[in-house]
Amino acid sequence: MAYVTIRDIAHKAGVSIAAVSQILHGKGRFSDETRELVLNTVREMGYVPDQRARAMRSAQTKTIGLLVPDLRNPYFADLVSSMEDELYARGYSTLIGTSAETVERQDAFIGNLLGQRIDGAIVVPQGVNSPGVQSLIARELPLVFVDRLVSGVDSVPFVVSDPYPGIREAVSELVRLGHRHIGFVSHSSLGSFNVNEREAAFRSAVAQEAQLGQGAAVVVDCDSTYVSRKAGLDHLLKAGVTAIMCAYSPDMITMIGLLHDRGIDIGGEMSVISFDDIAVFRLLTPQIAIISQQAEDMGRQGVDMLLDMIADEDRSRGESRYVPTSFVQRGSVGAPLRRVP
Amino acid sequence: MAYVTIRDIAHKAGVSIAAVSQILHGKGRFSDETRELVLNTVREMGYVPDQRARAMRSAQTKTIGLLVPDLRNPYFADLVSSMEDELYARGYSTLIGTSAETVERQDAFIGNLLGQRIDGAIVVPQGVNSPGVQSLIARELPLVFVDRLVSGVDSVPFVVSDPYPGIREAVSELVRLGHRHIGFVSHSSLGSFNVNEREAAFRSAVAQEAQLGQGAAVVVDCDSTYVSRKAGLDHLLKAGVTAIMCAYSPDMITMIGLLHDRGIDIGGEMSVISFDDIAVFRLLTPQIAIISQQAEDMGRQGVDMLLDMIADEDRSRGESRYVPTSFVQRGSVGAPLRRVP
Repeated sequence: MAYVTIRDIAHKAGVSIAAVSQILHGKGRFSDETRELVLNTVREMGYVPDQRARAMRSAQTKTIGLLVPDLRNPYFADLVSSMEDELYARGYSTLIGTSAETVERQDAFIGNLLGQRIDGAIVVPQGVNSPGVQSLIARELPLVFVDRLVSGVDSVPFVVSDPYPGIREAVSELVRLGHRHIGFVSHSSLGSFNVNEREAAFRSAVAQEAQLGQGAAVVVDCDSTYVSRKAGLDHLLKAGVTAIMCAYSPDMITMIGLLHDRGIDIGGEMSVISFDDIAVFRLLTPQIAIISQQAEDMGRQGVDMLLDMIADEDRSRGESRYVPTSFVQRGSVGAPLRRVP
Repeated sequence: MAYVTIRDIAHKAGVSIAAVSQILHGKGRFSDETRELVLNTVREMGYVPDQRARAMRSAQTKTIGLLVPDLRNPYFADLVSSMEDELYARGYSTLIGTSAETVERQDAFIGNLLGQRIDGAIVVPQGVNSPGVQSLIARELPLVFVDRLVSGVDSVPFVVSDPYPGIREAVSELVRLGHRHIGFVSHSSLGSFNVNEREAAFRSAVAQEAQLGQGAAVVVDCDSTYVSRKAGLDHLLKAGVTAIMCAYSPDMITMIGLLHDRGIDIGGEMSVISFDDIAVFRLLTPQIAIISQQAEDMGRQGVDMLLDMIADEDRSRGESRYVPTSFVQRGSVGAPLRRVP
């Protein structure tokens, strides 16, 4: 069968199981010949000491489960890669899974993960307190939420970004440049507490600007379909906004394509600002201004917190942290064009 | 401890271990009360039937290991996501790991994977026949290489792209437009048989064009550092090429930024063509022409092959396949500008 056991090694080498075990642990008295024969057989047959058995002895597997929503979203690819790099540097392997932004697939992966031997998990959860999340919590495995939290779940420490500082800075800059009608693209179908919080932060930032009147904030809500993003953009254009902010970067990527298609000049006729510091926004002409969540920093803090929890015999939980966002001004934001009457 | 066992359930519910086991399997005669008490306790404590034990009974874990070089490279993020989607649709969970394009990290992940219970693995290998690859092969686990193969390893079936058709088409189009000096950016430090094969395909395509003379092909080799990519581009510019092809898309992404910095007009002063059909190339202005490897198709074929091998009791190996590449013409390729004398 596919899994080589110590019994197979013994059989192949023509020695007892006890002999193989002793030689593998550097114990017992054997001739160099026998020792070499057994070690060569181990190598040839690709025998790997059973991690489960080893884990039961050593109590640690040095393996961490990582769950993120979507690897096609470069923001999460960056976040998971930085956590993986940090964990590898600290001696841990990672088993990565994704939820495809659905609770169903998230819970399927969690179910699988609970059957593997891991020392802990870092999860970017879907918003709801699902059966999968509940069973993960019930296992009392060291667990940290990163980037998103689950409302109503207080027992899991988290590292998430605070949207307020970055959004306030961005709105202030737009107002300074002369914008008076600002669009905001929400994405409530994600059911993400954190993405929804960005809309609240935007409304609060607009309310604080004395120069913005009633109706200055135009909020549309879209989902991940092309049709809904197009409808959202149409609505914002009709409402006469001169700047658009997106809470969820995949929406901005589609909308940039749509603005190009319509020949609308980004940074001139329409200023745009997205969440997330991803490479594509630096490659475009003009470069896209962003609200940075400092994914690398957030990932590193999540890893720190988890490894502290694993090391702590008392299993005390980590202290939740908010990482402030910041606004990064780039060519996609300029003064609104005044139409010649 | 962190792992809830059937013994813990029995203890908490005040029943025998045998009773818990029978109730979990829908067997035995118990009062509704007892049955409900046990099932509630199972839910409350987050008990998950041990996958290892279950696997030993059912022989299948319905879990596949996936190893890719780098999730920050959108080509691999697309490839792994499409394989994951396909596996999920067919009832399999996935455990994903990365090699960060190094043999050392690849082998570390393989070592970990071999200790988990999986039914098979799909691997985008680093080029060399490393100890990790050898131990994976020695385990006689169903195994498929996708996107890359390991030279000298004949026992593992693979699905890789054939670079010749796409590169030949691209070179023909450049010649038709009037290009007579074409640059090619290789990346031999990856040690990838397939990336190296692209250079051979380029040289062969150039040799077949009657209108191209000696010295028409200018090949530079770079690694993943900014410095080496900049030096490679400098060399090509000095050599007077009017078109550049990249074998490895991360190199093209850096070079596009460098061309922007120098104010060189892409599609006019310099035509560029990259490998890999990734979203960023469609977002740029002009859009970047590509040689498509049809990653989704390749991933699906790899999954098919692996699941066939798992289903086949005789463990016969799959038939290796080459997926033809194709050239996708876009705005980044135009006629070479003639300098006014």
